[in-house]
Amino acid sequence: MRMQGSFCEREKEGNKKKRGERGNMKIGQIRKAVLKRVKPDTKEERRLCGIAQTICEKMRKAAPNSVSVELMGSMSKGTNLKGKTDFDFFLLFPKSYAKHEMCMLGLSYAKKAAKGTPYEIRYAEHPYLKTTIDGCKVDMVPAYKIKSIEEKGTSVDRSQLHTKYVKGRMGEKQKDDVRLLKQFMKNIGVYGAELRVEGFSGYACELLILRYGSFEGVLKAAAKWKAPSIDIENHQKGNERKAFDAPLVLVDPVDGKRNVAAVVSQTSLGRFVLSARSFLKKPSLKHFFSEKVVRGKKNLKEMIKKRKTKFIALEFSAPNLVEDILWPQLKKTAKAVVSALETFGFAALGHYFWSDGKRCVVFVELLSWQLPAVRKVPGPLIELEKDVEGFMRAHKNAQNLHVEHARIVAIEKRKIEMAEKAVRLAMKNPQKYGVPENFIKCFSRAKFLGEAELLSERCREFVSDYYTRKIE
Amino acid sequence: MRMQGSFCEREKEGNKKKRGERGNMKIGQIRKAVLKRVKPDTKEERRLCGIAQTICEKMRKAAPNSVSVELMGSMSKGTNLKGKTDFDFFLLFPKSYAKHEMCMLGLSYAKKAAKGTPYEIRYAEHPYLKTTIDGCKVDMVPAYKIKSIEEKGTSVDRSQLHTKYVKGRMGEKQKDDVRLLKQFMKNIGVYGAELRVEGFSGYACELLILRYGSFEGVLKAAAKWKAPSIDIENHQKGNERKAFDAPLVLVDPVDGKRNVAAVVSQTSLGRFVLSARSFLKKPSLKHFFSEKVVRGKKNLKEMIKKRKTKFIALEFSAPNLVEDILWPQLKKTAKAVVSALETFGFAALGHYFWSDGKRCVVFVELLSWQLPAVRKVPGPLIELEKDVEGFMRAHKNAQNLHVEHARIVAIEKRKIEMAEKAVRLAMKNPQKYGVPENFIKCFSRAKFLGEAELLSERCREFVSDYYTRKIE
Repeated sequence: MRMQGSFCEREKEGNKKKRGERGNMKIGQIRKAVLKRVKPDTKEERRLCGIAQTICEKMRKAAPNSVSVELMGSMSKGTNLKGKTDFDFFLLFPKSYAKHEMCMLGLSYAKKAAKGTPYEIRYAEHPYLKTTIDGCKVDMVPAYKIKSIEEKGTSVDRSQLHTKYVKGRMGEKQKDDVRLLKQFMKNIGVYGAELRVEGFSGYACELLILRYGSFEGVLKAAAKWKAPSIDIENHQKGNERKAFDAPLVLVDPVDGKRNVAAVVSQTSLGRFVLSARSFLKKPSLKHFFSEKVVRGKKNLKEMIKKRKTKFIALEFSAPNLVEDILWPQLKKTAKAVVSALETFGFAALGHYFWSDGKRCVVFVELLSWQLPAVRKVPGPLIELEKDVEGFMRAHKNAQNLHVEHARIVAIEKRKIEMAEKAVRLAMKNPQKYGVPENFIKCFSRAKFLGEAELLSERCREFVSDYYTRKIE
Repeated sequence: MRMQGSFCEREKEGNKKKRGERGNMKIGQIRKAVLKRVKPDTKEERRLCGIAQTICEKMRKAAPNSVSVELMGSMSKGTNLKGKTDFDFFLLFPKSYAKHEMCMLGLSYAKKAAKGTPYEIRYAEHPYLKTTIDGCKVDMVPAYKIKSIEEKGTSVDRSQLHTKYVKGRMGEKQKDDVRLLKQFMKNIGVYGAELRVEGFSGYACELLILRYGSFEGVLKAAAKWKAPSIDIENHQKGNERKAFDAPLVLVDPVDGKRNVAAVVSQTSLGRFVLSARSFLKKPSLKHFFSEKVVRGKKNLKEMIKKRKTKFIALEFSAPNLVEDILWPQLKKTAKAVVSALETFGFAALGHYFWSDGKRCVVFVELLSWQLPAVRKVPGPLIELEKDVEGFMRAHKNAQNLHVEHARIVAIEKRKIEMAEKAVRLAMKNPQKYGVPENFIKCFSRAKFLGEAELLSERCREFVSDYYTRKIE
């Protein structure tokens, strides 16, 4: 509340109004410049339209009249970014078809339509066809045609409602605002609902624009967010925070039981909020197109040396998992390494993880890596007789055993004096430290990377990112 | 309550009863053996009695009849330990005397009585005379003669009530029990109400025996103590813990507003409780007469080396203060050193302090003594806009500045990388870290001790104590 107040005060101050106007003017220019780079031009749009139409016609021909063919996703809503060439076509069946029937028939129609192009069958909740036509990635997905979420037969059925909802409400200017927002988020690495990114989906961007009216409206709101919850259609009637446990709650207008922003992590949310404030304070093109600098080997080496820290970097082959399972589990694996280190008294300054789908790297920068041969074990309160007896029995060979204030305390020989040894121990018993099942085998065979390997081509990007990351 | 329960269960078990009986028998033998060493024998008693009588007569002669002369303290109560040769004589004035009069006249009578012996005048709340007669230390203290605490004119007036209270209630066997308790406490270093010891006064020992009936009774009670409060005369009517804030509350039966155990520290209390349990489980003479081992130089050197820790030891001249002010302030000074180290990220495994009244030593064993060139500074929650802005301004030159979960975090250059430098900084600004006023000058000129100096004659006892202390 205090912040809201001070925001108003600022608006009231006359001499600062000018700056605001200048800001707004500038935002107009920025808007133009960004759209020039991220909005598909007439030529591109015409080309994509042509391709879409061709595919659509082929699919309509392949399917009977009772099955309608519809384009979904950003392409159909006109919120697509330049260069995005993914088409999501749906084959919409009446609910009279059994699920099995719908899937099998849908796939056969899709195959017919895709004839002559190299396609493959993929499986999400149910199978769909994936192909490439004229350089565009095309998904053909069988689903039921529904009017409301209550009719939903499969999880992909929801898409048509999303498309309809956005199309029916969004003006032309707002579509451009979605593009601005997407590019803004992309630039700070929070665009995309993949679990690697833990960010905002395209649909989430569209809903934010619908809720706050414009790109600037979204940023102004985000700048003030505190445990934000957004419920455009008022499905949860003020109980959003009770219904969903997530940093950002964005209730799906077409499905009140779903949080569209469920995968947005606290960190992604925080980055977006900070960038929003930064942009509002001093809008610039940098907020959309900042160059990612990968430091040179020598520069990074110097940086590591100057920090006088040590690191542990483990490389291991990635388990054969889809991205959305790989990344959260890799995250857990990295946390397990940190937790193993902490268990033995070693403190981490920070950690990072990375994968290209084939190899994984877990990286920990250490605040301490060597500890004395003894450690202090605080025991129970003296008054807890049984506990004290147990503690004394367990520590009867301790080097010291004495009273410190209200507790008994033991000075014990430390099992692990070097951080690397703690990690090797975790590699021998990965379950104990929380390494997910899928990672156990690969992780237990991890290889320790030296500085030379860490600064080699394949790691340098994320190492550079780790050592240099800085909010403006 | 659970403990009480299991204690009863143990008593009920038949096969363990025998062990209990054997234990009791053994306690009888131990009692005898200890008393033989700590109870003054007839010869000693007769000699002390003679000396007391002579002094008493001299004092009675020196003072008018309206002033009565009385012996106080353990000697008068018959709870004195062998070899204790301190006499506390009081010159008790009627309340009709003004305080100034009472002090001046009292001193002049005392001087008269002490004529021919080398005496000196000391000051507590008011002046008293200190002398040595036949190898005994004798205090002659002027005070008012009172019947109850309400009449009290000076703080020393209370003593006569203490003496009367104990003498009127304590049997011969109980007097020996007081001696056992005192020796038991002496052996573990918790006997004495000096602030150096932070332990139990003789009067506290006497009250404990009166409350629990016997030496064993005291130990059995202590073994079960949980935030103990004892109020023999029920002055506080169950509100002892509200009236006094101390690890042990022992309400003075003659002055309900006073906690006799006020100086007993949590550590002293804990040591007593643990020893009580240990004795009850396996009574032995060791609980009264354990040899204090001072390790040799080579042995200690080896021990320090094996722990792979480092230490910081500061030696400085003791400020000119009486013991009861010196020790608590030295304790604070030691804590200030530890707190300075912790402020800069260095962890202490333990600390110790020592003084002979001329020199002081503060000793800290370090868990970490060298840290990297950077440190992590956790910032405010992202949602706290003003705080985040302030943090970003303050850390705009940080090496890293990024979002971690819900907070902003900075990686900053560390000011102090070596523990010794942190201590040197504290020496330059002692107030800031909590060094008491009286110690500032001496402390700021402290000298760092190396291993050779630490293992030299003057430090070896406490160093040995620190590295080897162990509860049985």
